[in-house]
Amino acid sequence: MSSGTYHPKPEHKFSFGLWTVGNRGRDPFGEAVRPAIPPNEIVALLAEVGAWGVNLHDNDLVDRIVREFKTACEKHGLVVPMATVNLFYDPVFRDGAFTANNREVRAYAVQKTMRAMDLGAELGAKLFVLWGGREGTETDACRRPDHAFKNLRESINYLCEYNLHKKYGFKFALEAKPNEPRGDIYLPSTGAYLGFIPTLDHPEMVGVNPEVAHEHMAGLNFVHAVAQAWEAGKLFHIDLNDQYPGRYDQDLRFGSASTKALFWLVKFLEDVGYPGPRHFDAHAYRTEDVEGVKDFARGCMRTYLILKEKARQWNADKDIQNLFAEINSSGIGHGGKYSSQNAKELLNKSFDRTTLAHAGLMYERLDQLTIDLLLGVR
Amino acid sequence: MSSGTYHPKPEHKFSFGLWTVGNRGRDPFGEAVRPAIPPNEIVALLAEVGAWGVNLHDNDLVDRIVREFKTACEKHGLVVPMATVNLFYDPVFRDGAFTANNREVRAYAVQKTMRAMDLGAELGAKLFVLWGGREGTETDACRRPDHAFKNLRESINYLCEYNLHKKYGFKFALEAKPNEPRGDIYLPSTGAYLGFIPTLDHPEMVGVNPEVAHEHMAGLNFVHAVAQAWEAGKLFHIDLNDQYPGRYDQDLRFGSASTKALFWLVKFLEDVGYPGPRHFDAHAYRTEDVEGVKDFARGCMRTYLILKEKARQWNADKDIQNLFAEINSSGIGHGGKYSSQNAKELLNKSFDRTTLAHAGLMYERLDQLTIDLLLGVR
Amino acid sequence: MSSGTYHPKPEHKFSFGLWTVGNRGRDPFGEAVRPAIPPNEIVALLAEVGAWGVNLHDNDLVDRIVREFKTACEKHGLVVPMATVNLFYDPVFRDGAFTANNREVRAYAVQKTMRAMDLGAELGAKLFVLWGGREGTETDACRRPDHAFKNLRESINYLCEYNLHKKYGFKFALEAKPNEPRGDIYLPSTGAYLGFIPTLDHPEMVGVNPEVAHEHMAGLNFVHAVAQAWEAGKLFHIDLNDQYPGRYDQDLRFGSASTKALFWLVKFLEDVGYPGPRHFDAHAYRTEDVEGVKDFARGCMRTYLILKEKARQWNADKDIQNLFAEINSSGIGHGGKYSSQNAKELLNKSFDRTTLAHAGLMYERLDQLTIDLLLGVR
Amino acid sequence: MSSGTYHPKPEHKFSFGLWTVGNRGRDPFGEAVRPAIPPNEIVALLAEVGAWGVNLHDNDLVDRIVREFKTACEKHGLVVPMATVNLFYDPVFRDGAFTANNREVRAYAVQKTMRAMDLGAELGAKLFVLWGGREGTETDACRRPDHAFKNLRESINYLCEYNLHKKYGFKFALEAKPNEPRGDIYLPSTGAYLGFIPTLDHPEMVGVNPEVAHEHMAGLNFVHAVAQAWEAGKLFHIDLNDQYPGRYDQDLRFGSASTKALFWLVKFLEDVGYPGPRHFDAHAYRTEDVEGVKDFARGCMRTYLILKEKARQWNADKDIQNLFAEINSSGIGHGGKYSSQNAKELLNKSFDRTTLAHAGLMYERLDQLTIDLLLGVR
Repeated sequence: MSSGTYHPKPEHKFSFGLWTVGNRGRDPFGEAVRPAIPPNEIVALLAEVGAWGVNLHDNDLVDRIVREFKTACEKHGLVVPMATVNLFYDPVFRDGAFTANNREVRAYAVQKTMRAMDLGAELGAKLFVLWGGREGTETDACRRPDHAFKNLRESINYLCEYNLHKKYGFKFALEAKPNEPRGDIYLPSTGAYLGFIPTLDHPEMVGVNPEVAHEHMAGLNFVHAVAQAWEAGKLFHIDLNDQYPGRYDQDLRFGSASTKALFWLVKFLEDVGYPGPRHFDAHAYRTEDVEGVKDFARGCMRTYLILKEKARQWNADKDIQNLFAEINSSGIGHGGKYSSQNAKELLNKSFDRTTLAHAGLMYERLDQLTIDLLLGVR
Repeated sequence: MSSGTYHPKPEHKFSFGLWTVGNRGRDPFGEAVRPAIPPNEIVALLAEVGAWGVNLHDNDLVDRIVREFKTACEKHGLVVPMATVNLFYDPVFRDGAFTANNREVRAYAVQKTMRAMDLGAELGAKLFVLWGGREGTETDACRRPDHAFKNLRESINYLCEYNLHKKYGFKFALEAKPNEPRGDIYLPSTGAYLGFIPTLDHPEMVGVNPEVAHEHMAGLNFVHAVAQAWEAGKLFHIDLNDQYPGRYDQDLRFGSASTKALFWLVKFLEDVGYPGPRHFDAHAYRTEDVEGVKDFARGCMRTYLILKEKARQWNADKDIQNLFAEINSSGIGHGGKYSSQNAKELLNKSFDRTTLAHAGLMYERLDQLTIDLLLGVR
Repeated sequence: MSSGTYHPKPEHKFSFGLWTVGNRGRDPFGEAVRPAIPPNEIVALLAEVGAWGVNLHDNDLVDRIVREFKTACEKHGLVVPMATVNLFYDPVFRDGAFTANNREVRAYAVQKTMRAMDLGAELGAKLFVLWGGREGTETDACRRPDHAFKNLRESINYLCEYNLHKKYGFKFALEAKPNEPRGDIYLPSTGAYLGFIPTLDHPEMVGVNPEVAHEHMAGLNFVHAVAQAWEAGKLFHIDLNDQYPGRYDQDLRFGSASTKALFWLVKFLEDVGYPGPRHFDAHAYRTEDVEGVKDFARGCMRTYLILKEKARQWNADKDIQNLFAEINSSGIGHGGKYSSQNAKELLNKSFDRTTLAHAGLMYERLDQLTIDLLLGVR
Repeated sequence: MSSGTYHPKPEHKFSFGLWTVGNRGRDPFGEAVRPAIPPNEIVALLAEVGAWGVNLHDNDLVDRIVREFKTACEKHGLVVPMATVNLFYDPVFRDGAFTANNREVRAYAVQKTMRAMDLGAELGAKLFVLWGGREGTETDACRRPDHAFKNLRESINYLCEYNLHKKYGFKFALEAKPNEPRGDIYLPSTGAYLGFIPTLDHPEMVGVNPEVAHEHMAGLNFVHAVAQAWEAGKLFHIDLNDQYPGRYDQDLRFGSASTKALFWLVKFLEDVGYPGPRHFDAHAYRTEDVEGVKDFARGCMRTYLILKEKARQWNADKDIQNLFAEINSSGIGHGGKYSSQNAKELLNKSFDRTTLAHAGLMYERLDQLTIDLLLGVR
């Protein structure tokens, strides 16, 4: 991990959750393989590997040792850009949190979130992520799905009011996942949340937190989801990791599985100037000890920086740019707003379909040039 | 196929596309196995098996033999509830239609859609489906995805204006699909379109057309997607068929693969009183001749009606209803709108998490009762 | 769960693992929701719900309280048809067991299995299942995959010799899974193990233990895998449960997801007279308490019996049987063994391809009759 | 596509099927986009881009213009290493070929294969690939799956005898695919065929032809499947392309989707000295004209050669090799064959499980070094 070019700096805004490098490697078929690390030591570890920010669930700070945690962050120069609430670990949430059938559970979930917002605000976070990990079903016998959406909406509306009332200034970022730990999770993709947000009382306060693994689990193209969110002004946060499609949630080291797909992602984020944190929501293999956890964390950031540099090269490569310009020579749009006049003209227009149908578009060439560039042979 | 109880009637609003029973059984590895059937004969076939409506692509009426087609519909008592445009078959659309890089292609796609709207209006259709089958990529080298969304939006805005200008009164229903025939199709799920619609100039004119197979391909829960659309007032049309997850687009006979999932769907549509057509966008196996195509079409409607009757039984079954009532005894909502007073009370409230966490919720029992009912042993 | 027809009896050979009804509902995102149940109480619970057999991992008997366990089995009339070894829970196996890079781990895995065989033999089991849950990788950097196969073979050969030496008379049943808890598990399907077994020293002693969920995770047709194993004389054991494709390992109640696919399975097992245990390797939803666990266990067996009765009906239904007979009128085989004479005749034979290509095969009809039968409307 | 290092040479044994570069870009939703190219021109095209071999289906040579084809091959210096038979395109095979219910169809399939073998032998091929693309079902109502296996076995046995009788010296390579064009294809993975082959009359004559896309469709690890085949002496041929999991059959340019997975593949093939052809069974995007088809074909070979050079670097990289050696320091095996003496010693051995469980295995580090190497930053 030698070369100096790809070292993380604060300007890169790399953040990790306490639960990521602190992950103990428990899984459904095996016990924890690594010891618990106290939050303050995780802060030190993150500083050592070069991170800029640290995020946390309310549950991550046992006994809410907030003062020590703040001190540790200051000492190590880390910020807390985002906070979130754990509405999934406690058995009380086994049937959901905001969408649980039991009203008491729903109320408790709202209360727990309010307290997590208090904690996040105290630590200076300006983003609040809501992942409804348990909002879903194994059997749709249990409730009507539209009722679940109504309950979810009520809770988020309530939390937005609390945010206003307390003048916390949070932006909420909603995180989708198709399944696991529930058989089916409601609003299973980033797109579904983009459809849900306009139905809220304060849509301007709420955006999305797309996660690579969660879209890839359903075999969906991640950069398309991110671009839809960005273009709608809703890309408030992002969770970076990696994942093979059609499997359990893997949370792999960023870039370790889907190199090309994540190249397009990094290129998009850098091209449009996404200003938010680059948050790695991943964890090390169970084969690793603490040194391996550091290798994992360094690798996430390193691969991001390598891909960022590749994106710069792609934008500077004359062959690639000439080809791209030729392919995109029409620009965006086809002729402005509707008028009865231009509609008439369009209806009367004759198109040379044969020519349009047979021009080679050179996408194989452009894609191979990209592969060459990614593999470092250009 | 004996029993008389499950015969289709006009009130059931069962419709088929010309392309469904007219499907010739061509696939990527094999030639057509059935002869082409002229549109008028398809209308007769649909009347014979008991359908209420027939839908069509502009391409399905060769030489636009509209008069004969209308006559056939009138003769056989079929309506044309929905029309659509084929923006995928012609090689001119191999790089997309509204999102193609070439502006001429985009313009031609808009023109072709306007003409298809003219045709649909002439046939009395009030719904216009847009399936962007070619709007997507095999490599994201070809364009920035956000630019594709801008082009798509411009085209749909334009078509909405044309709809207003011509006073056609169409509602547009946008249909999502994750992939095939493109590597990745933009806006891959119903949810993604629900997020896109609010960014249009006339969102009230535009809804969605969810298709069973298209959500199942990505392993997503279909009734959840339909419920989100319904709850948002956007369920304008629906495509019924069947599909195993994680495969090529199968368009199987309705209910032939996912019995339980489609039971929840039918139950939801009937419980909420969905008023639109039940459109079967499916086709017969390649092993079938025309008689087999009729078996296929009859089977689609028959299974819908069987599941509808099962839904009625579920709602009338005392054991099931008692269990469901107990499970849902809290109703919807947790206490109304935010106030600083109820927020304070909520924050101070003490919850008995132990009790909440350990009550058995009896979902296994309710699900097994459902299985019993589905299998006809209750 | 009233009707008397579908009650389990010993002759049905329904068995459960201690770990199935004893599952505590822990998952990657949540804590256990149910208390631990001592093995003897699980035996009582299984007897109460009507099971015939109980299987166990070596790990399931804490402190190896074997005598009490045997007494409980005798008291409740349960047999122990199968035993297995847990080579996945202990962190020592985080890199695999028989295929771990570290030779000490491999040796320990063999030792642990020998002891589990001792235990199984003491309890009267005649089947020994080996599930290599940790035999796999997250990155193929760690070793050459062919070396892993060599290590796996060596271990199984060794255990076969131990079996012979101790005169235990075990048959080994190897269980495949594509992934989870490892990124990729070696020999990911039942078919792969059928390919591996002929390379062993004692292939006659070794067969397979196909599991519904494990083939369905990869989207594979389960009854095809079972039929291949059966036809090869290798179906030594079977794990029944349910699973949606392309997801984490769900271990759902038998028949709760894939009704039709499991109908074909039950029909196949009953038609060919599979003589082994019907083992349910599943667990109750996390929403359940102990009563719900019983509902779950009862439901597994009940649905099996319902599907068995449906299979009987299918075989007795005249319309179905006439159709099936017509479709299968050619029988099996096309004309016996090769001879130069019949080869010459075959090469000279003229086939009426047009007729062969256009006969309707009536599979839609037969499948719909099956759906009708499954839904109880025939 | 400048740099000279990665140019194909005959020693690389790169081959393409006539149907790959000749693919006309037809798909289920669209018409052909490219004109048909006569076989002789395809041979010229392949020579131009640097291929060594050309493979063919019997159907690819219309009117069996064999002499001209041989002349073209000689003129352009191409060999014909492999031949195959098309048992899927003709509607006669819509219910399968060797496993079709109709005996006449099965006999015709055998006849057609015999003639394809005659053709292949005439062209000098020594490998004969059998892909049972239509051997499968949409509904398992149609036949018992074990009967299908019996029919398949009979046909292959017959063809082996024909091979012996005619002294053709073919090796047969059986190719698996999980689904498409059938709902489920029998023997869906390379592993399943490895299990089937030992049940044949001449197992030594029959091996497998694994295809990247076909294993990836089911989300299976390709190099594991290849390694199992290789280790069993059954890797007779290989189909190289690329594919995203859980989708329709994409047949993408080699290395354009799964860079890292295919790096392990190339490394394995080169490390073990696989002597057979590197056959690319892929096709260009529909956006391409003939120049794009050449870009596609060149890209397949180029990426193979780049990955081959990366494999060489991996084997020569001291950091990587030291790490790999440390991780694999135990070698293969755990102590030889069983004896009652070493079994006793093993049972008595005490293992330091704590130490074994907590050593860091450095797989994150090794994987990141691999990523660095792949991205060209080492």
